[in-house]
Amino acid sequence: MQDRQIRVIGIGTGDPEHLTLQAVRALSDVDAVFVLDKRAETADLVDIRKRICAAHIRNPHRVVTVEDPPRERRPADYGATVEAWHAARAERLEAAFAAELDTGQVGAILVWGDPALYDSTLRILDRIASRGRLALSYAVIPGLSSVQVLAARHGVPLNAIGGPVLITTGRRLAAGWPEDAESVVVMLDGDPSFAHLDPDLTIYWGAYLGSPDEILVSGRLGTVGDEIRRVRGEARARHGWIMDIYLLRRLAA
Amino acid sequence: MQDRQIRVIGIGTGDPEHLTLQAVRALSDVDAVFVLDKRAETADLVDIRKRICAAHIRNPHRVVTVEDPPRERRPADYGATVEAWHAARAERLEAAFAAELDTGQVGAILVWGDPALYDSTLRILDRIASRGRLALSYAVIPGLSSVQVLAARHGVPLNAIGGPVLITTGRRLAAGWPEDAESVVVMLDGDPSFAHLDPDLTIYWGAYLGSPDEILVSGRLGTVGDEIRRVRGEARARHGWIMDIYLLRRLAA
Repeated sequence: MQDRQIRVIGIGTGDPEHLTLQAVRALSDVDAVFVLDKRAETADLVDIRKRICAAHIRNPHRVVTVEDPPRERRPADYGATVEAWHAARAERLEAAFAAELDTGQVGAILVWGDPALYDSTLRILDRIASRGRLALSYAVIPGLSSVQVLAARHGVPLNAIGGPVLITTGRRLAAGWPEDAESVVVMLDGDPSFAHLDPDLTIYWGAYLGSPDEILVSGRLGTVGDEIRRVRGEARARHGWIMDIYLLRRLAA
Repeated sequence: MQDRQIRVIGIGTGDPEHLTLQAVRALSDVDAVFVLDKRAETADLVDIRKRICAAHIRNPHRVVTVEDPPRERRPADYGATVEAWHAARAERLEAAFAAELDTGQVGAILVWGDPALYDSTLRILDRIASRGRLALSYAVIPGLSSVQVLAARHGVPLNAIGGPVLITTGRRLAAGWPEDAESVVVMLDGDPSFAHLDPDLTIYWGAYLGSPDEILVSGRLGTVGDEIRRVRGEARARHGWIMDIYLLRRLAA
């Protein structure tokens, strides 16, 4: 019996031209697209996803929405809560694969950015594969991450010469500047607060990267930090949502 | 007077299909391709670069090789030596732009991986722009980095759930496991030595990623570390060169 094939395809950050030729090819013959986490997608993002599918999938194909189980947004035990939530998502997705794909057919899951960075799809598929109830093979097609698009749009390298780059979350940065760090990329920061950081850091901030709504601000943190918080708040109010990211760099001593 | 336009285009890690649609478009109308650091490119890489240009540049165009100044490979003062070398490269590249591009024409520099990560092109262009002798504008087209292709080919996320990712160099890892790190990507490691690291780390190693010669090894570091060193040595002897990268992950306690 042939496996069902799942392709996890990174689609970049909001510009349909972020797709790689490999992703275009991987989309061309899919039989069904599985959409996870639909409630997290705004109308703008849904529109881009639909345009990508219409432009590149050559087969007649189904679009299958897999509803997310409810999730506690500010759990006391972050790790355990995410684990339980992944387990519930895995059951729902497994049921959708079984119902919507025949053996030998190909399903696609489109992931914003790159599937390897702060995305749960691979963990969910690994969980389904480990359960062993459904014969399944999967492949990952990498996509441009917001980390790279941020650096490209500012025209700057991520690393200092020969230096390291730390990619971390707003939650972790709240605890303070990571020891020995010189270039820090911060993702998933729902309410950036820069007051606890060295004002002489340089910040490169971007929102809605790659889209027509893109906003970029950069400069000395102590000088532009308040402006970023203001611009961010206004943009979020105007759009009803925001996706943003920033790079902080400490000048070499 | 119109500026000369330079496009710095990330072309991925060795699969011509790593190109994004944005990169394909950015290539289509270039007048000249500037090749830096040619001696670092092996015959295999030169061949892929030529295929990319032939497939996607629609204009008649020139290919201009800019020879690198000599570089000290094991300098005592790494930072200062790299600085001086960048200055010499900037002069040579500026002269090539002036000689080979008319005002208003478009030049491209193709960068393996992503221009933001361990690549000197942006620093050199910034230096030329700062000198102000040549009116120049430049744009960066991001490309898939080996970091992402490594994770994709192993089918694993880079980060643990909600956890940070440190991208660093072999030189720095030689000093020991970075404090508090849980997921570490190591690049530019000319001679990986794992003996000083915890054997219970998990390693995901890859070489020639994206190419037909790709090699992947993963497992417990203490179990597969020697195998990786052996496979790596054999591959380097066979090809005459190697490009590799690895992810180390500490299991959550």
